Amino acid sequence: MSATWQEYLDDNQQRFVDELLEFLRIPSVSTDSAYAGDVRDAAKWISSRMEQAGIEGVQIMETGGHPIVYGEWLHAEGQPTLLVYGHFDVQPADPLGLWTNPPFEPTVVGDLVYARGASDMKGNDLLPVIACEALLQTTGTIPVNIKFLCEGEEEIGSPSLEPFIAAHQDLLACDMVVCADGGVGSKSAPVVNVGRRGLIGLEVHVTSASTDLHSGGAGGIAPNAIHALTRVLDSMRDGEGRILVDGFYSDVRPLTEEDKADIAKYPFDPVDYQAKTGVKAFFGEPEFTPQERNTVRPTLEINGIWGGYQGEGTKTVIPREAFAKITCRLVPDQQPARIQELVAAHIRKYAPAEVDVTVTAAPGDAEPYVLDKNHPGLAALEEALSAASDVAPVHIRGGGTVPITAMFKNILGVDTITLGATLGHDGAHAPNEHYSLKNFARIQAVFCMLFEKIGASVMA
Amino acid sequence: MSATWQEYLDDNQQRFVDELLEFLRIPSVSTDSAYAGDVRDAAKWISSRMEQAGIEGVQIMETGGHPIVYGEWLHAEGQPTLLVYGHFDVQPADPLGLWTNPPFEPTVVGDLVYARGASDMKGNDLLPVIACEALLQTTGTIPVNIKFLCEGEEEIGSPSLEPFIAAHQDLLACDMVVCADGGVGSKSAPVVNVGRRGLIGLEVHVTSASTDLHSGGAGGIAPNAIHALTRVLDSMRDGEGRILVDGFYSDVRPLTEEDKADIAKYPFDPVDYQAKTGVKAFFGEPEFTPQERNTVRPTLEINGIWGGYQGEGTKTVIPREAFAKITCRLVPDQQPARIQELVAAHIRKYAPAEVDVTVTAAPGDAEPYVLDKNHPGLAALEEALSAASDVAPVHIRGGGTVPITAMFKNILGVDTITLGATLGHDGAHAPNEHYSLKNFARIQAVFCMLFEKIGASVMA
Repeated sequence: MSATWQEYLDDNQQRFVDELLEFLRIPSVSTDSAYAGDVRDAAKWISSRMEQAGIEGVQIMETGGHPIVYGEWLHAEGQPTLLVYGHFDVQPADPLGLWTNPPFEPTVVGDLVYARGASDMKGNDLLPVIACEALLQTTGTIPVNIKFLCEGEEEIGSPSLEPFIAAHQDLLACDMVVCADGGVGSKSAPVVNVGRRGLIGLEVHVTSASTDLHSGGAGGIAPNAIHALTRVLDSMRDGEGRILVDGFYSDVRPLTEEDKADIAKYPFDPVDYQAKTGVKAFFGEPEFTPQERNTVRPTLEINGIWGGYQGEGTKTVIPREAFAKITCRLVPDQQPARIQELVAAHIRKYAPAEVDVTVTAAPGDAEPYVLDKNHPGLAALEEALSAASDVAPVHIRGGGTVPITAMFKNILGVDTITLGATLGHDGAHAPNEHYSLKNFARIQAVFCMLFEKIGASVMA
Repeated sequence: MSATWQEYLDDNQQRFVDELLEFLRIPSVSTDSAYAGDVRDAAKWISSRMEQAGIEGVQIMETGGHPIVYGEWLHAEGQPTLLVYGHFDVQPADPLGLWTNPPFEPTVVGDLVYARGASDMKGNDLLPVIACEALLQTTGTIPVNIKFLCEGEEEIGSPSLEPFIAAHQDLLACDMVVCADGGVGSKSAPVVNVGRRGLIGLEVHVTSASTDLHSGGAGGIAPNAIHALTRVLDSMRDGEGRILVDGFYSDVRPLTEEDKADIAKYPFDPVDYQAKTGVKAFFGEPEFTPQERNTVRPTLEINGIWGGYQGEGTKTVIPREAFAKITCRLVPDQQPARIQELVAAHIRKYAPAEVDVTVTAAPGDAEPYVLDKNHPGLAALEEALSAASDVAPVHIRGGGTVPITAMFKNILGVDTITLGATLGHDGAHAPNEHYSLKNFARIQAVFCMLFEKIGASVMA
């Protein structure tokens, strides 16, 4: 019998690892309907594991797509309620040839377990469940109320989640969300994420004729869809990366001196970055630092372009159509619908008169998100993480997009803090995805501490 | 027994049509090695047909690729020697589903025969052979010396032709070339082609990193290969189609008032052109007419572009590379190697510093070509064509490229006139390619007259 939750974690760690390997063997690929049964098996597996931990009212709830798992422990009377978010689906394992070990036969090498879903996010799913178990087994209670919401569609854009939350607002009512899908850096360089950029996407389609034309017979009289497209696209950014769309920056919240000082602490090693990515030079608004441009400045990127002949050799064609895909990362207080309209208006304004240009909005808009610095969950997370790290964590705003944070804010009116054990170089979505078992154990303890700190802060 | 060559042509026309159908049944697709035997069968067929017509010394000569057919009739002592050029290979018939009749089962509907190779150029191959036969059968002689050079690789860019001509300069020595691969317009709107544009091609490859990057994690610090490519490409033409490459126009021979007056006579119907092509607006240097831009002005066109994500939906990637294919049509006195270098220099000059840009020259350069207006072959062709048409022909310079004309000029030192029966709307290279049998018969007679006129002009 373990005396403290830390002893319990230590005494049972091998079992937790074995359980993780079992969970990882389920190929719960949500995007491929051939694996729909496996996604459901993963839902069943995590449900059983929750029940085993002492979570109550566990149920597999149906949606229009893959099911959602809900569970709760609500015996901390007068204490805050946390909604812990996770997902049990995984990315496809392709390209299989690049894996050293089969993606659904988890393989432990030293501290690392290699498998699809290891870092994104089956290991992280287990962290709060294990923490609840350790607290219940050693103290008989949990210092806060907990609800679990675990979905099976995160890797396909969570199409069922927003309607599910909207339809179950009483069930999911809480004081804050803890997102387990992420990381908090390493023991030596801990970070706490306090914001994410939003996202919009659109596709541009230029048409210059009803048929491709011969560059001999039509060269000099016919418009060229690709030339027109490059004209429009090149009008959108200047040579230093500033976005030239009218009004694009109007709603961007100015950075305070404190913001700038915080951002200057972000871990960023330009030499290492260049070595890993092969970028010849950093690029972007010179009046901001790389860390600022990468997290709190909005972007506009062409993600894809195509038109005309792309095969071997020469084809003397004047192409009748050309396409481009564009996405923008947004920051507070840019609104997706407004930016979508400004970019579309720019494209229409700069479209050469000799062609037709259509702009289509892509689905999947996401609002930018930033957590208030005085949020009580943030202070608790910071304290918990400090206790398990060598130095105090740095607050960072991430450059990517996690649509659920804005979703929880808009529907449930609550903020989200993030606590997971994934590291930046864990190869999520890539071959040889892996996960540190030492960090797995470390963050289990941080979850226990987080529950205690939040409980204590409100009790005090 | 026919008394005149015209009577001979009339009396035997059904046989000539039957022979054409037989020739068209051979699927001599040069680009696909599965048809190599058929290309050789086509060589044998035209060889036999030449011999049957009274052409002598007919031989199938080997090259590194498909064979070349040579034949001659050299008994017009003191008279000029014409080298008649043609080819017996055809384009692939794909897409087969768009053909109304099987492409190698020639089908006659009214005046038209439908088959792959009908207009390009098995019918035209027969024209000078039939003309020689008609002259020999009715007059016992031909008023000029004739050499035939018929290749099997025109549709794949004639890779063996230039070395063949260079290696057989004595055999092929002549006073002028008559290219049967083309057309002279209709009876009511005859044209004589006196020039062709040249061609260069190049491919641009932009690299911004060693891997595609995530637009969240890298957005704001990493360069984007597509943005850089659109910047370079958009720098090459202004909004009205003028080419901005330094020195691009320096060697363009200025148009004389006579040139302009000639070009103004070119058949061009803008309403019909827009109906057929669906172009919303004509586009190009406003200081030149459409006919000028389309024939005697050089062009620069992006023929293809690609990079990044081109699939369904959104992928938030910063692409590491992007590509474009460019060709230029050239006019006298632009030199392909010089223009190639100027365009490459422009691309290197405008390449953004944050990316690597490479420019690769495409094979298949061709010099522009223009026939001197005082060339004796041109006058003879014009007279012969006038006699078989309702009105006098218009001299035009074509917008396309026929590399053999510059090849014959450079190696053999002779000019090329063009005489064939193909019409502009005959669907060469396309499904349902067809050929007018009336025009087939008409141009047989023009060939007879051409031989007589050239013979007479020199005799006189």
